[in-house]
Amino acid sequence: MTDSSTRRFDAASLRAFVARTFEAVGMPKPDASVVAELMVSADLGGAEGHGVFRLPQYVRRIRAGGINLHPNIRIERERDGMALIDGDNGMGHLVMKVAAQHAIAKAKRAGVGWVGVHHSNHAGPASLYARMPIEHDMIGLYLAVGNANHLPPWGGIDLLLSTNPIAVAVPALEEAPVVLDMASTVAAYGKVKTKAQRGEPMPEGWMIDRQGKPLTDPLRADEGFLLPIGGYKGYGLALVFGLLAGTLNGAANGPDTIDFNKDDRTPTNTGQAIVAISIEAFSDVDAFKRKVDALIGALRNSRRLPDVDRIRLPGEQSHAKRIAYERDGIPLAPELVRKLNDLAAELRTARLS
Amino acid sequence: MTDSSTRRFDAASLRAFVARTFEAVGMPKPDASVVAELMVSADLGGAEGHGVFRLPQYVRRIRAGGINLHPNIRIERERDGMALIDGDNGMGHLVMKVAAQHAIAKAKRAGVGWVGVHHSNHAGPASLYARMPIEHDMIGLYLAVGNANHLPPWGGIDLLLSTNPIAVAVPALEEAPVVLDMASTVAAYGKVKTKAQRGEPMPEGWMIDRQGKPLTDPLRADEGFLLPIGGYKGYGLALVFGLLAGTLNGAANGPDTIDFNKDDRTPTNTGQAIVAISIEAFSDVDAFKRKVDALIGALRNSRRLPDVDRIRLPGEQSHAKRIAYERDGIPLAPELVRKLNDLAAELRTARLS
Repeated sequence: MTDSSTRRFDAASLRAFVARTFEAVGMPKPDASVVAELMVSADLGGAEGHGVFRLPQYVRRIRAGGINLHPNIRIERERDGMALIDGDNGMGHLVMKVAAQHAIAKAKRAGVGWVGVHHSNHAGPASLYARMPIEHDMIGLYLAVGNANHLPPWGGIDLLLSTNPIAVAVPALEEAPVVLDMASTVAAYGKVKTKAQRGEPMPEGWMIDRQGKPLTDPLRADEGFLLPIGGYKGYGLALVFGLLAGTLNGAANGPDTIDFNKDDRTPTNTGQAIVAISIEAFSDVDAFKRKVDALIGALRNSRRLPDVDRIRLPGEQSHAKRIAYERDGIPLAPELVRKLNDLAAELRTARLS
Repeated sequence: MTDSSTRRFDAASLRAFVARTFEAVGMPKPDASVVAELMVSADLGGAEGHGVFRLPQYVRRIRAGGINLHPNIRIERERDGMALIDGDNGMGHLVMKVAAQHAIAKAKRAGVGWVGVHHSNHAGPASLYARMPIEHDMIGLYLAVGNANHLPPWGGIDLLLSTNPIAVAVPALEEAPVVLDMASTVAAYGKVKTKAQRGEPMPEGWMIDRQGKPLTDPLRADEGFLLPIGGYKGYGLALVFGLLAGTLNGAANGPDTIDFNKDDRTPTNTGQAIVAISIEAFSDVDAFKRKVDALIGALRNSRRLPDVDRIRLPGEQSHAKRIAYERDGIPLAPELVRKLNDLAAELRTARLS
C-alpha cells in the first residue's frame, strides 16, 4: 500500500490543512474545525477512501452550491428514546456529530437513544459515528443510505439501491473495542475505484455484468454492478438498512437517491441513523466489558485454518493503524498529495507540510 | 418440496395437536396455547424448520427437566426506552412474546423500545417476533443468539459462534410488509440437515472442512463448518448480533453457548432482543407506508437478469405461503407426521387429524 514515494503527514497538520481549505470556500471556522477533525480521524483509522481523499469532492460540491454552509441543524421531532434531526443540507459530519450527541444524551436517561437524520450529506466512514457512544460506556450502531446506487435488487439489473452500510461498536475492558463497519456488498465501490487506479483486475465475486457473468475489469465497472454479500441476503440488508436510515427519516432511498459523484448541486437529502445503547441500563459495565474481553480472547485463540497467521476481530486492524498513524503520521499516496496541493494552489491557501 | 404423500393439515388442528402435546407433559393450558399459536404461525409462514418440526425436541427437553414449565417471566431492569427481561428458563416463545409486548408498549411512549432477554430458550423463527410490532404501525427488529455453535471466527476452525440471525419487519400500505429473516451464514444449519435427509449434496460455498476445502457431503457436516456471508463480514455480523442479543443481556454467547441438540438438561440461558420503532414518532404513518409501497414497486419493476422470472422482496414468499396455507392447510412431510403421531402414541394423546 505505501510505496517509497508515499509521504507521511502528522494528524495535526492534516487537520489544519483541511480546516483552512474549508474556510477558504466559506465554511465558518468552528464548523471547518469539526469536519477536519472527523475527516482526519477517518484517515487515522485507516478508512483512507472516506477521509481527506474526499476533500476535493466536498469542495467542488460546496462551490457548486450543493451544501448549505450555514445550516440550522435542529431537532424536528423527539420523544424520550428518539429524535429526528433536520440537517438543513449541512455537511454530513456536522449533522451526524449533533445526532450522535443527542443519541448519547437520550440513552443516558432512557437507556436507548435512536436518532435519525434527513437533509444530511455524506459523513465519512460509518465507524466514525458508531464509535462515539463508546466513550460513554455505550454501544453504538449506525446505519446510512449510501450516496450513489450501485446495487440492483437480487435478480435485477437496474441500480436501485446503495451499498447501505452498518457499523456497530462495542467497548471492551483491556481489549480494543469491537468495531464492525461494512457495506452490504462483497466489495465497497471505493475498492473498485482503487483497483482501477492501480490497473489491477477485480477478483470474481465482486461484480457481475448485465448478463450475470463475472466482471473483473474495473474499467468496465459501469457495465455491471456490485454483488451483495450472501446473494439475496445482502440485498435484503441493503434494503432494510435503507428503509431504517432513509425512508423512516424522510430521506432519499432507492430511485430518489442523488448520485453525488455525478451531481454537485441537487441536495442529496441523505439519511443516517445512530443508536446509542447504555450498557449500564442492562448490566454492570465492567462485568459486561470483561465478558467482551473474554469472548475476544476465545475467538483469537481459536485453532486456525492452514496458512492463517492470526484470527482478527472486527476493528482490530483499524485500531492498530490509529495507534501507528498517531505516532508515525498518516501515509498519503503521492497522487492524493498532488491533488490536495493543486487544490491549495487554486484556493491560494498554504500547501500540505 | 411437497410430494404426493405429503398431507395438509389445517392450522387449527395443528394448533390443537401442539397444545395437547404440551399439556400432556405438564405445561399449563394457557401457555401451551400461546406456544402452539406461535409454532403453527411459523409453519404458516413457511419456516418449516422452526415450527411443529421442533415439537419432539421441545418435548424431549421438557421431560429431561431442561425447561421451566412454571416460569416467573419478569422485568429485571427498565427505563423509558428499554427493558431487560429474565425469562426464568421458560419456553422461548413465552419469553419473547412478553418481550415484544413490552417493546411495543415502550415504543408507544418513548418512540423506540429495546427489550433484551436472558434465561430464555429457542423461540422459533426470528421473523415471528420482528413481525409483532407491525400490527401497531411499528418497525420490528429482532436479534438472537443461536442454540448451537456452528461458526468459527474467520480464519479459525473452532466452533465458537452461532449463526446468529437478524430479522427486520417493515409495514407497507397496499403491499405485503418487507420481512427480512436471515442467518449470518450462507446456509442455516437446518438446510444442511434437510440436504442430509434427502441424500443430496450441498452446493460449494455452504461449508468448508478444517483444511479450508469445500465440503459438499451433508453427512460429513461434523467435519467442517458453515461459511459466513461475505466472509469476514458475516463473521462480524454473527459476532455483534451475539454481543447485542447475548452478552449485553447477561445471556450465553460464544464458548458458553449450550448445544441444545446434544444437551437436553442444562439451561441454555438463551439471549434475544426485540426492538420496536414507532413510525408515528418519525413520520406520518400513511406517508411512510406509501413510500415503502413505492420502493417495493420500483424494485419489483427492475429489468431482470436472463432467466430470472420475477424480482422478489424479502418476506414475499413467506407471505404468499401464509395466505395459501391458511386456505389449503399446511403441508407436512410424511416422516414428520409419523414422528408427531409416534409422540402422540407415547403420550397417549389424540393423533393428528
